[in-house]
Amino acid sequence: MDHNTLPPGSLDRAIRQMRAALGAQNVLTDPAAMADYGDPFAPPGDWYRPGAVLLPESVEQVQAVLRIANEHGTPVWTSSQGRNKGYGGGAPRVSGSFALSLRRMNRVLEVNEESCWALIEPGVRFFDLYAHLRASGSRLWMSVPDLGAGSVIGNALDHGLGYTPMGDHFGNHCGMEVVLANGDVLRTGMGGMSNPHAWQVFPHGCGPTADGLFTQSNYGVVTKMGVWLMPPPEVYMPGWLTLDSEAQFGPFLEALRPLMIDGTIPNQPMIINAVCAASAFWDRKDWYTGDAAIPEQVIDEIAKTPGFGRWVMRFALSGDTPVVAHQRAKVEAAFGAIPGCTLTFSQYDGCNLPELENPHERVQAGIPSMALDRMTRWYGGEHGGHIGFSCAMPITGRDGVAIRDLTRRQLNADGLDYSGVFIVSKRYMIHVALVVFDTQDAAQSRRAYASTKAMLEPAAKLGYGEYRSHIDFMDIVAEQYDFNNHAQRRFAETIKDAVDPNGILSPGKQGIWPRAYRNGR
Amino acid sequence: MDHNTLPPGSLDRAIRQMRAALGAQNVLTDPAAMADYGDPFAPPGDWYRPGAVLLPESVEQVQAVLRIANEHGTPVWTSSQGRNKGYGGGAPRVSGSFALSLRRMNRVLEVNEESCWALIEPGVRFFDLYAHLRASGSRLWMSVPDLGAGSVIGNALDHGLGYTPMGDHFGNHCGMEVVLANGDVLRTGMGGMSNPHAWQVFPHGCGPTADGLFTQSNYGVVTKMGVWLMPPPEVYMPGWLTLDSEAQFGPFLEALRPLMIDGTIPNQPMIINAVCAASAFWDRKDWYTGDAAIPEQVIDEIAKTPGFGRWVMRFALSGDTPVVAHQRAKVEAAFGAIPGCTLTFSQYDGCNLPELENPHERVQAGIPSMALDRMTRWYGGEHGGHIGFSCAMPITGRDGVAIRDLTRRQLNADGLDYSGVFIVSKRYMIHVALVVFDTQDAAQSRRAYASTKAMLEPAAKLGYGEYRSHIDFMDIVAEQYDFNNHAQRRFAETIKDAVDPNGILSPGKQGIWPRAYRNGR
Repeated sequence: MDHNTLPPGSLDRAIRQMRAALGAQNVLTDPAAMADYGDPFAPPGDWYRPGAVLLPESVEQVQAVLRIANEHGTPVWTSSQGRNKGYGGGAPRVSGSFALSLRRMNRVLEVNEESCWALIEPGVRFFDLYAHLRASGSRLWMSVPDLGAGSVIGNALDHGLGYTPMGDHFGNHCGMEVVLANGDVLRTGMGGMSNPHAWQVFPHGCGPTADGLFTQSNYGVVTKMGVWLMPPPEVYMPGWLTLDSEAQFGPFLEALRPLMIDGTIPNQPMIINAVCAASAFWDRKDWYTGDAAIPEQVIDEIAKTPGFGRWVMRFALSGDTPVVAHQRAKVEAAFGAIPGCTLTFSQYDGCNLPELENPHERVQAGIPSMALDRMTRWYGGEHGGHIGFSCAMPITGRDGVAIRDLTRRQLNADGLDYSGVFIVSKRYMIHVALVVFDTQDAAQSRRAYASTKAMLEPAAKLGYGEYRSHIDFMDIVAEQYDFNNHAQRRFAETIKDAVDPNGILSPGKQGIWPRAYRNGR
Repeated sequence: MDHNTLPPGSLDRAIRQMRAALGAQNVLTDPAAMADYGDPFAPPGDWYRPGAVLLPESVEQVQAVLRIANEHGTPVWTSSQGRNKGYGGGAPRVSGSFALSLRRMNRVLEVNEESCWALIEPGVRFFDLYAHLRASGSRLWMSVPDLGAGSVIGNALDHGLGYTPMGDHFGNHCGMEVVLANGDVLRTGMGGMSNPHAWQVFPHGCGPTADGLFTQSNYGVVTKMGVWLMPPPEVYMPGWLTLDSEAQFGPFLEALRPLMIDGTIPNQPMIINAVCAASAFWDRKDWYTGDAAIPEQVIDEIAKTPGFGRWVMRFALSGDTPVVAHQRAKVEAAFGAIPGCTLTFSQYDGCNLPELENPHERVQAGIPSMALDRMTRWYGGEHGGHIGFSCAMPITGRDGVAIRDLTRRQLNADGLDYSGVFIVSKRYMIHVALVVFDTQDAAQSRRAYASTKAMLEPAAKLGYGEYRSHIDFMDIVAEQYDFNNHAQRRFAETIKDAVDPNGILSPGKQGIWPRAYRNGR
């Protein structure tokens, strides 16, 4: 069987039943109507596209969809909002599949002010949850990624990151409801009881904890999830650190690590290189119009812009007044010894935030924004796009320098600019190269994909695995997880065959293929 | 098939092969030699006991054990140290099974001072890891439960709790190696790569996260695990709070919750009732010699002992000097308004701790101790034992009072004392009633089990599920997880049949039975 495209007509019989189950208006087959459910940065020509889009509004309708799909053996690629930009959006790995979009299941079911959590459906966007909290008079903060139009659940399921102290979105979920391939409705953890008091506060039940299985997977359709919130901090102090030389990047990371591990910096900072920082304000042509990768001396010019540097780190201190004062002093002492490093801070009353204009200050306070969507316009204006090349590693100078150098070398050799960030957690950081390109430029698009794919194996050889992947190279990423001749894949396939014997759910997701598709390997 | 006992001779043929694989001295069949591998609090008469104890020293020997077990279809009940006191220790649910004890696999494989983690084997006890850290000159702190003789890995796999800021032991693991029932060696997360730099710092791979599956489960044998450590705090300030009246217990919990959620109290406090606190110092007969439950007026006498109360909370502040000063002021302000509440603190240099004599101060600094083992001597002296009745719930006055009252009523009605603690995390607390009894008193032992079992369903009806269970009532606990007619159990069984088709691994663990055992249900 061809992994990449279903034969024409494959969905026809199932579509009739889907229309009966969901209402005709909730089964989209018109290409124009489906455009918003695919890869937002699809390059010209053949690409991963849904054969039809399904829009259920309830758990029962999701069950009906899976029943029909099982009957016809038709693949169903699930997304919550499908805003997984840089990784394929809602587009299916097997082109022509049903795209199951949960956008209409968008209720905030409960907010608990005492224990600080919300129970939501997968169609709830960061914007929606934020609006709900403010409209209901809640003072609680949530955590958001840079773009607020995505699904809160979808982001957590893809191990997405935000920038408050609760920025590990999967780590700050509690309790799921999942529709399994056979239509059975499973609730994880304490949700296994009929009347649980602790479903959204205690992350386990009594027995195996299944939640992780439903992340980056094709084992079920998550229809509810608990999300932890936090009380507003007395002081919110976003800060900027600039570094004027690449040579200090390693020492800077060495100074940062202990501040993360001991919680002095309580949020998840983002370290941004000059090209990436520039892309939030300018088009590439404002700085350089050559075809080759942007030269180092132009990057140095960008870096000299006030507020910029070769690298800038956005971060935020928060907490009670004396605690934040101490955090700040410790941060200033730690970075003071690094040549060419500057620090600036703003300070706000976290319990009575003013209208924050700077989008970076907004996202670090858990306020959704779309401002940073501009970064993809570096090449190609409104037709700009990007792919994420996204590795996990310890917070060390050695690791940061190694991945920076590998990425820069490969992209520049392919005539592409290196636009990169590091998102920093307590013990690890994720390096994301936003491989930006003009989606209408076929040749540049091809180069962007080829260059990104070319980095996967060398990065793995150095010890760096992708933490998330575009659908176009999920198989190559999975290849890198080769310990004990791919024990992880064997285990993942064993589970897949057991919980989805007909292989209907998101075949190929993260390189996990159902039995019927595996013969070719 | 009888769930509870294998027919005599069931292991005979397999034992010969086990001896060849492990060496005869590492296959115990003599009852006296096996005594230390069963339930430490076994009551008189028939009980859950291993048919033979297997002591492998390597992953390869674990693989050999599972190969032989598959060949003969003989059940293998795995424990790391088997010190899961109050829950059955290392005793198998199916009496007469092999007990696979990993005590000889006790190497600390690596300690990383930069990113603060250790990679260890399952036989490593809290004492061992602590000794290794001190002997190697490491300044890092670890987290320990009240009794230090247990396995670090075993405790995390059973969702055990400790009392430093890293006291959620599963939440502070990172990366596992697991031998599956078919002998395949799986490494989770970034360990899926052959040369990972992030196995012990990033908790996922690229694809589903399997770690939770191997907790409280019978899906594999965990042979390595990463454990996060922490830098020593500048100030370590253990504290005691006493509460002189049961009437203030609810308001006290209401005052505590926000201090947990915002991190003012960074560790995991334990709230201890008067009987339990007394049991750390005295035998019951020092206070009361009657057969019925200890009367309220005697508890009031205990509560009037200096340093005691109806409830006492042990907790610890920690961090940099100004931060701890602020934590302390906030704690004092929060509890100052509660009548009959007192607070006392000690203060130490966390980076240069003196020899701490108080075991409570030791465990909250991550220093292993066995002193609190005394609590089980309340009845029966050295023959004392206890069962854990252990529910999870939100940190609210309503929930704390409800479970206290249910437990006290039932135990007292059965003539047993209510010895209880709450272990408090950021958003939940675990109520553990230590149902203490004299293991040589057959009638009292029976009452202790009957009384504990009698609480399971009423607690579940109120919304409280066990987070951990003694082998003797794992099935009853599993019965309470009945949402959607036991969807959790159906899912757990589907996974079980897929990953362990011969049903050799720990049948009955947490109420999960292999297919061959399920016909009777």
